Amino acid sequence: MTDTTNLVSIVKKFTSKIMSKKIPETTIIRLSVYYRALRQMSEQGVESTSSERLAEVVGYTAAQIRKDLAYFGQFGVPGRGYYVADLKLNISRILGINREWEVVLIGAGRLGEALIAYKGFERQHFRIVGVFDNNPDKFGKVRAGLTIRDIEELPKVVAEQKVEIGILTVPADQAQLVVNRMAEAGLKAILSFVPAPLEVPEGVILRRVDLAMELEALSYYLTLKTR
Amino acid sequence: MTDTTNLVSIVKKFTSKIMSKKIPETTIIRLSVYYRALRQMSEQGVESTSSERLAEVVGYTAAQIRKDLAYFGQFGVPGRGYYVADLKLNISRILGINREWEVVLIGAGRLGEALIAYKGFERQHFRIVGVFDNNPDKFGKVRAGLTIRDIEELPKVVAEQKVEIGILTVPADQAQLVVNRMAEAGLKAILSFVPAPLEVPEGVILRRVDLAMELEALSYYLTLKTR
Repeated sequence: MTDTTNLVSIVKKFTSKIMSKKIPETTIIRLSVYYRALRQMSEQGVESTSSERLAEVVGYTAAQIRKDLAYFGQFGVPGRGYYVADLKLNISRILGINREWEVVLIGAGRLGEALIAYKGFERQHFRIVGVFDNNPDKFGKVRAGLTIRDIEELPKVVAEQKVEIGILTVPADQAQLVVNRMAEAGLKAILSFVPAPLEVPEGVILRRVDLAMELEALSYYLTLKTR
Repeated sequence: MTDTTNLVSIVKKFTSKIMSKKIPETTIIRLSVYYRALRQMSEQGVESTSSERLAEVVGYTAAQIRKDLAYFGQFGVPGRGYYVADLKLNISRILGINREWEVVLIGAGRLGEALIAYKGFERQHFRIVGVFDNNPDKFGKVRAGLTIRDIEELPKVVAEQKVEIGILTVPADQAQLVVNRMAEAGLKAILSFVPAPLEVPEGVILRRVDLAMELEALSYYLTLKTR
């Protein structure tokens, strides 16, 4: 091992510490929640707020909000709270949603089609620019203004449009193969709706949405009530 | 205010403390993750495991896993780890998924139809037993074996089949009205896919799935990389 690989390994460890340990993922998710509350305040003409007021809106404690924000700097004005517009802009920068992200979707089944039409993405600056499938019967069909294309064309589209994020909505038995192709095509982050564990090569982030887990949080509370 | 209302208020505060503070919601979500890992081990014929081995599979630390489980009791055998079948059963009891849950879905649009066909629910014992809409053109149509019904029939179905959980997939501008009707119909927990904040009466749990938030966690990490 040379000194360079050692350094690379140290940098990797350090980056991985920042990315997964130091700032908890739950903080990132809460930032998204704060952002939505601030957007709402902003739309209602509210100019300044406090961690206490924000806490009432989002349902976390004021201390939690202050702790989450403190990871990224000092945003409030002592004794005066936060300027809504400033804090909203700062959080959007942290989350990377102060710009537009082009996104591709692979798997034009029922869920894929529902996500193409989902209104919540565009508002947060995620724009689906390509839809891919491996079923020739679907090629050329148009869904919400997007033409379904052969997955063979994925690398070309990813390179040409500099796409980094892909949404995965294929059947579970094909998912690992498709993930490999997404990584080979150059995608850097994958949001998977496949109800099965998947592996990604180093340097690619995979986030899994398991819709049944959301229901389990509900069945937990319902069960707790009757205990 | 009488002593009774005081007591009710104290009990409510206490319950709310148990439900939202003492056991963090993130612990509940991680239990779902552990459950999936244990199910996979079980399917592979693995009989016993340890928090260290489980940590490797799920990506949380062994200490986190032990802390999460400790909220609910002592599950491991000192020096020997956990029996996979036992721990899996215990977690399924905690999450309330050692039984079947009947679920209704309101809003038979694209996302609603995708969720009706979603394979991940049944495996976790959530069975959609009724689909409702307010558009008469849709009444009587069949999706994945389920007939779309008039939302007017919701209270009857909820009462007859003792349904507690409802999935909400209606347009944002109708959502609050539909939530009120769901609560009136007797539903106790609502999983909302509506990209807007909603209010529920006391005693009803609302959980919101905001699919854009999942993408924001990805854009955060991608932005972090280039900083």
